[in-house]
Amino acid sequence: MKPVKVGIVGLGTVGGGAFNLLKENAAEISRRTGRYIQVSHVGIRRDSGKYDLHGVKVSQDIFAVVNDPEVDIVVEVIGGTTTARELVLTAIANGKHVVTANKALLAEFGNEIFAAAEAKGVYVAFEAAVAGGVPIIKVLREGLAANRIEWLAGIINGTGNYILTEMRDKGRDFADVLKEAQALGYAEADPTFDVEGIDAAHKLTILASIAFGIPLQFAKVYTEGITRLTREDVSYAEELGYRIKNLGIARRTPEGIELRVHPTLISADRLIANVHGVKNAVLVQSNAVGPTLYYGAGAGAGPTGSAVVADIVDVVRSLSSDNNSYVPHLAFQPNELADTPILPVEAIRTAYYLRLQANDKPGVLADVTRILSENGISIEAILQKPAHEAGTVPVIILTKPVIEREMNRAIGSLEALTDIVAPVVRIRLEALDA
Amino acid sequence: MKPVKVGIVGLGTVGGGAFNLLKENAAEISRRTGRYIQVSHVGIRRDSGKYDLHGVKVSQDIFAVVNDPEVDIVVEVIGGTTTARELVLTAIANGKHVVTANKALLAEFGNEIFAAAEAKGVYVAFEAAVAGGVPIIKVLREGLAANRIEWLAGIINGTGNYILTEMRDKGRDFADVLKEAQALGYAEADPTFDVEGIDAAHKLTILASIAFGIPLQFAKVYTEGITRLTREDVSYAEELGYRIKNLGIARRTPEGIELRVHPTLISADRLIANVHGVKNAVLVQSNAVGPTLYYGAGAGAGPTGSAVVADIVDVVRSLSSDNNSYVPHLAFQPNELADTPILPVEAIRTAYYLRLQANDKPGVLADVTRILSENGISIEAILQKPAHEAGTVPVIILTKPVIEREMNRAIGSLEALTDIVAPVVRIRLEALDA
Repeated sequence: MKPVKVGIVGLGTVGGGAFNLLKENAAEISRRTGRYIQVSHVGIRRDSGKYDLHGVKVSQDIFAVVNDPEVDIVVEVIGGTTTARELVLTAIANGKHVVTANKALLAEFGNEIFAAAEAKGVYVAFEAAVAGGVPIIKVLREGLAANRIEWLAGIINGTGNYILTEMRDKGRDFADVLKEAQALGYAEADPTFDVEGIDAAHKLTILASIAFGIPLQFAKVYTEGITRLTREDVSYAEELGYRIKNLGIARRTPEGIELRVHPTLISADRLIANVHGVKNAVLVQSNAVGPTLYYGAGAGAGPTGSAVVADIVDVVRSLSSDNNSYVPHLAFQPNELADTPILPVEAIRTAYYLRLQANDKPGVLADVTRILSENGISIEAILQKPAHEAGTVPVIILTKPVIEREMNRAIGSLEALTDIVAPVVRIRLEALDA
Repeated sequence: MKPVKVGIVGLGTVGGGAFNLLKENAAEISRRTGRYIQVSHVGIRRDSGKYDLHGVKVSQDIFAVVNDPEVDIVVEVIGGTTTARELVLTAIANGKHVVTANKALLAEFGNEIFAAAEAKGVYVAFEAAVAGGVPIIKVLREGLAANRIEWLAGIINGTGNYILTEMRDKGRDFADVLKEAQALGYAEADPTFDVEGIDAAHKLTILASIAFGIPLQFAKVYTEGITRLTREDVSYAEELGYRIKNLGIARRTPEGIELRVHPTLISADRLIANVHGVKNAVLVQSNAVGPTLYYGAGAGAGPTGSAVVADIVDVVRSLSSDNNSYVPHLAFQPNELADTPILPVEAIRTAYYLRLQANDKPGVLADVTRILSENGISIEAILQKPAHEAGTVPVIILTKPVIEREMNRAIGSLEALTDIVAPVVRIRLEALDA
């Protein structure tokens, strides 16, 4: 059979990883697919000289790749959402299958892109967009196809998890660890996407869509970063038997779907609480199989290249079939996507870690507990620490689950107390019970 | 489109689970597949009355299902290897696709069954055969298709892991926990398959085949059960920072492939060491993505039913495609399976936990360490416990990795010492390093 011809646009970490993998593991891959996969055309604005491009057509005009009649599959790994969108839509219009690692592009323009692909009868694959080399997209779309998925919670930003792991292990401050992560290349010079939860929100948008069969709705994800976490909170959480992880959470409720990214306390004895450093993990609760967890490297040339190449292999297999055998892009048939409402953050239900800085005098705790009680909030645990500033003490409270709106009201009343001397710190807490 | 007709042979835990799931999650499943999947025919020797078989053809002659011209896909979930083999081969001969959860059948007769299926152009799917609802077959065959898989290590027998978890958590003896597990229905009246590692060896045979592209070779798996583990060893391991898990391990080495099931010490801080109770997990080391881990329920109606139905969905998708789009049964193209040798257990390389019962007198430890050194065995840690029998003390030694043959020789010499008063207890230890 003639080789399948792949065009790669962008030879950064992901593209270079895929390029090398197709060469290094060529024997293993063609033992699996029965076809030779050839990178025939690469689009790069500048040649870094890092890759052996001998025998490969190289174009500085990246659109030459998607317009090359010889190319069967286009790998888009340039990132960004403007040129990438145009490039992917052009590839589709030209009847080419597309493999992309671009979560921002899909989270923001995926509905348009998948509709174009379905109209044209081509496939857009995106395993590398979430959790790098962990095949979580395939698992959700195919492996758990018999299940009604109830919720999922994922550590889906390795940089954020690295920072939180270091803060906990070494008792260090956020800013300090971030600076080191930047020096080590784990964090970008502009770390906003990672530390403000935007990257995780892009990925959560995709996971939620394929888990629940809803359109991609990035704009409706509640997103909170890890920049305001202090080492004190990390340490108090630890003392209470919890770890703080930055989770992306998507959950069905009778009222609608929760979509949120924020620092979250989880019990230290949970498997997902023991996912350290730059690693990713996604915990999925489904109605038949119960909880399952998928763990591995979320970034880097090898892991993301692995996901891109797995997608290429899937597309190669689909080349010899008609459209009916495609797994739908968003797991559910395009005409079966539901318009289930996405809940505003005020309507989500979760437990809380609260830290109050209180004047060290009688009656304050009574006021605090009265206010919580008046707002229908039950207390799970209280930890009062010795004073470390003159005359004030930190009081840590874990609550039972409550609607966020009620908690906002309670916090308003707490902050109005004259003996509460600083804004209340709140971090959400999830039991992650099946 | 007309519904896909499924015949189920056997309505035990797995078959009943799949039957119920196809009904309960019918809306969710057909939103995904775009086709209605109808159980049209059930083969059961006796009707338990547990399932609503209204509108389903029921045959006591189970071969009536595989001979039913209306049935597109046969689900074989009767277990055993004699009738099941005949049934599956007949279904294939009749041009029907097959979904099975029968690990014993595949581990022992899979080569024959897959060859028959390939000759006939039908598909035999078996996600439920390993790790229940965790889609590990799909992950290895498709998700990691770009990787050269180096090794995998799995907790793939829930009953065994439940027993080990209880022994550790409650300091109980094997026999005691087994009896309770039988009462709770976690262990069979005849627990041999579970506690002697045979069930795990069946599953490991399948995993190794699809990981490395080798034929199924159940007879070559080294298998050791958990029946001789004592609570003392569980507790000493704990003290040294390790947990004992019954692992199925498959590893490529330059000399050949290791295939082994045995109790194994693993560092307590590893994610897989924290997989408790009846849960399963498989850790896979691949050359591009590095270590990834897959965790979830390995048994029960929901999880196994979930895997059976996911296979049905996959087969339904392949109904509209030609054979070239099939994922090969054993992940690699049939003509690409390698005849890599499987190593005998004497040739495997692993670290060890050794427990010696020694007379409590000077010079014994010097003899022991001299013998190990003479056999080229390096010591990682030694723990000498206070005497608990008159005049003798347990000495626990962790070694660095060594070829089993050398260890056998050393143990022979150790047991020949007059001051070593009992057979040496040995448990293998794996670092599971990437």
